[in-house]
Amino acid sequence: LSSQPSSESKPAPQEPVRNKKYDPKKPHITESPLTRQNWYKHVNWLNVVMILGIPLAGCITAIWTPLRWQTALFAVVYYFCTGLGITAGYHRLWAHTSYSASLPLKIFLAAVGGGAVEGSIRWWARDHRAHHRYTDTDKDPYSVRKGLMYSHLGWMIMKQNPKRIGRTDISDLNDDKVVQWQHKNYLKVLVFMGMVFPMLVCGLAWGDWRGGFIYAGILRIFFVQQATFCVNSLAHWLGDQPFDDRNSPRDHVITALVTLGEGYHNFHHEFPSDYRNAIEWHQYDPTKWSIWLWKQMGLAYDLKQFRSNEIEKGRLQQQQKKLDQQRSKLDWGVPLEQLPVMEWDDYVDQAANGRGLVAVAGVVHDVSDFITDHPGGKAMIKSGIGKDATAMFNGGVYNHSNAAHNLLSTMRVGVIRGGMEVEIWKRAQKENKDTVVIKD
Amino acid sequence: LSSQPSSESKPAPQEPVRNKKYDPKKPHITESPLTRQNWYKHVNWLNVVMILGIPLAGCITAIWTPLRWQTALFAVVYYFCTGLGITAGYHRLWAHTSYSASLPLKIFLAAVGGGAVEGSIRWWARDHRAHHRYTDTDKDPYSVRKGLMYSHLGWMIMKQNPKRIGRTDISDLNDDKVVQWQHKNYLKVLVFMGMVFPMLVCGLAWGDWRGGFIYAGILRIFFVQQATFCVNSLAHWLGDQPFDDRNSPRDHVITALVTLGEGYHNFHHEFPSDYRNAIEWHQYDPTKWSIWLWKQMGLAYDLKQFRSNEIEKGRLQQQQKKLDQQRSKLDWGVPLEQLPVMEWDDYVDQAANGRGLVAVAGVVHDVSDFITDHPGGKAMIKSGIGKDATAMFNGGVYNHSNAAHNLLSTMRVGVIRGGMEVEIWKRAQKENKDTVVIKD
Ligand code: HEM
Ligand code: HEM
Ligand SMILES: [Fe+2]
Ligand SMILES: [Fe+2]
Ligand SMILES: [Fe+2]
Ligand SMILES: [Fe+2]
Repeated sequence: LSSQPSSESKPAPQEPVRNKKYDPKKPHITESPLTRQNWYKHVNWLNVVMILGIPLAGCITAIWTPLRWQTALFAVVYYFCTGLGITAGYHRLWAHTSYSASLPLKIFLAAVGGGAVEGSIRWWARDHRAHHRYTDTDKDPYSVRKGLMYSHLGWMIMKQNPKRIGRTDISDLNDDKVVQWQHKNYLKVLVFMGMVFPMLVCGLAWGDWRGGFIYAGILRIFFVQQATFCVNSLAHWLGDQPFDDRNSPRDHVITALVTLGEGYHNFHHEFPSDYRNAIEWHQYDPTKWSIWLWKQMGLAYDLKQFRSNEIEKGRLQQQQKKLDQQRSKLDWGVPLEQLPVMEWDDYVDQAANGRGLVAVAGVVHDVSDFITDHPGGKAMIKSGIGKDATAMFNGGVYNHSNAAHNLLSTMRVGVIRGGMEVEIWKRAQKENKDTVVIKD
Repeated sequence: LSSQPSSESKPAPQEPVRNKKYDPKKPHITESPLTRQNWYKHVNWLNVVMILGIPLAGCITAIWTPLRWQTALFAVVYYFCTGLGITAGYHRLWAHTSYSASLPLKIFLAAVGGGAVEGSIRWWARDHRAHHRYTDTDKDPYSVRKGLMYSHLGWMIMKQNPKRIGRTDISDLNDDKVVQWQHKNYLKVLVFMGMVFPMLVCGLAWGDWRGGFIYAGILRIFFVQQATFCVNSLAHWLGDQPFDDRNSPRDHVITALVTLGEGYHNFHHEFPSDYRNAIEWHQYDPTKWSIWLWKQMGLAYDLKQFRSNEIEKGRLQQQQKKLDQQRSKLDWGVPLEQLPVMEWDDYVDQAANGRGLVAVAGVVHDVSDFITDHPGGKAMIKSGIGKDATAMFNGGVYNHSNAAHNLLSTMRVGVIRGGMEVEIWKRAQKENKDTVVIKD
């Protein structure tokens, strides 16, 4: 119906290429099915070594490496810094431009984000934008529809066909000097920020070179990776969906605790340009707190917030949707327009002949099975049979509860022709009086 | 509109008379206003002594009365028995006939209920039925609208005008032999079950006559009274209203814990004939559990339950009501029928002259203030200005979220005459083609 706008259709140079050897003309390995013979070709061995091999080696080495408390403390602090590099930097700043950062803050985030060893900003943000734009579809790079483990790790451990992943506009990232530089020098950034820097800190400050490498380097990387991977897996699997339940993103405090506040993921997918993930003050979102702090320090500005009117509208619409689903499961009685029409005299006759019929508000109800159960007693309900019981039912004798009205509607069997008004008028004519009040 | 049915209008003998000296012809004390001179005449001194004086005396005497563990244990057990006499007996059996009981169970409940010292079944149930029928009105004997303390104690401590309290049908109670007998011999029941019996148990079994009297008698009465009074005060003051918020009853687990399960009072007022107060298995309702146990033992039968379809309907309607209230507080944009009608050519002209107008689904939106904020970029949104952007907005370029649709609706400024269909048809005519597809 409409052509793709210009920035969408620009050729390859705009797109980051993950593998220099990739030639779009040759058939990609993912195009041939996985077999006993070729399975090892489907595996991204580099990533297996990076994500699983090195941490495993680190764990084993840790057995012979004493853990000093200074190193432990620094590892935790550095865990939070590199985690923030991903959540506040890669994610909220670059993938979603939910706020703007001054150059020093950008450099800091690009550096510590690199130390989390999750790829360059450019590569990460491109995939992440595709994830938001094509959530849960085949174009989503880490679609949870392919399994929880796939969305957590599998998408990196198995080779991916670059053609499969949805295209997104990353022209703003290509114009960003810090992003450009980090992408070009990614391997150096990774090695230095991931391993050399923590080793230097622990080595120079308290002489624990080995501990700094193993604990604040290797093992810290492993924990930061697993934690941030949870945004792709756990956050699409565990929790509530207060804003939209058509896709998989979910809100849960456990995910928030693990991911430095990225756990309110249903909100985030609905309002990705909002610098917050948690909108309540009591929810855990240290990434939001950090961005806010940077703003106070003059390092961040233009913090974007979706209008709360629109947020509340979204929440309400989702609640309404759930309510409508529940409503459709209940018995609301035969709809009025499907009921047979009865003559008033016919109603009176049938009631006189022993059918337990009570007319309320122009609708005839069969209360036969309810007479003995009536909380107001048999005599009371019987006094309404064959009459217009509207007034009695609505306060003339007893002002029935909403529950009683609901029960009544399930007993509908017909409507009086012309409604009760016609009967009132006819009776008034007969009595030659000009009254509209009935007395039963 | 309708005359009161027979059982409602029967004369005095049907009504229990609280005070033999009461003469309906003489002016009642409550008809003269409370002054410095007559205030003591307004006070019900008998009740002051019974509810506050005796417990106070008991507290003081307790200082010189050692508490033995057997007596303490028995006092707690007897507290539960006499409490159940009120909740399972006076309340759910006699006031609401929510189940039927065999003679031995009735005698047990009438006895232990008497031991709680809260009046006879007949008097208690009559007031309680009036409380349900006229909740929160002046005819409610313990209306919480007169203050929390009034609903807890005040209504007993101050003299009441018998004419004020709403009339109810208690013919079933007048036919009940156990109720009759207990009413006639109420003072004997009170003294024996309230004080003599616990004294006898503790005296004969472990020689603690004095402790039995003070702890299992006087002080236990005080606690049972205060606990069950909470049904009239706390249950109308603290908690949620999941079924109906037009009146004061509320659900709260604290009230339930204090009152042997009568804390789900919003439910109870909506479905008083249900033998349960708590409908979820995990909610605390030992009164319900006891009734259920008596049923298994063959002592209780005909346990009434409101149809769960009607219960769920009530809950849903209340949720809908709250949702509608919230909805009315939000900005949903100008309703379509209040928007000015624009000619298509006028829309195109205005947009060409610099107004940021975008037409989506036949509605014109002014997006001028939003262009720089657009999460999809300035270029994208500008590409829709002066065109029919329906297809772009709904997936042609980007399938916008529900949040984006909500935001869009707040920017409405006009509707295209005849909707877009007319434009499509006109254009097709002009191009002399028989097509209904537009290309922007
Ligand atoms: C026609 C179908 C009727 C239904 C489905 C019905 C249902 C109910 C229900 C569920 C209650 C329990 C309290 C409440 O939820 O409000 C109730 C109470 C009562 N009903 Fe009806 N009712 C019907 C007809 C009547 C009629 C015709 C009369 C009187 C002429 C009547 C008189 C009463 C009275 C006086 C009570 C109060 C009982 C009390 O609190 O002591 N009802 N009814
Ligand atoms: C007319 C008023 C418009 C409004 C109120 C609006 C609103 C939004 C919002 C709130 C988003 C964020 C994602 C979402 O919530 O779905 C968004 C994203 C987007 N919009 Fe619009 N939009 C408008 C017009 C357009 C037009 C005319 C185009 C294209 C011609 C367009 C293209 C896009 C694209 C491509 C994105 C995705 C950005 C990304 O995820 O990278 N929008 N828009
Ligand atoms: Fe996600
Ligand atoms: Fe995101
Ligand atoms: Fe109540
Ligand atoms: Fe009650």
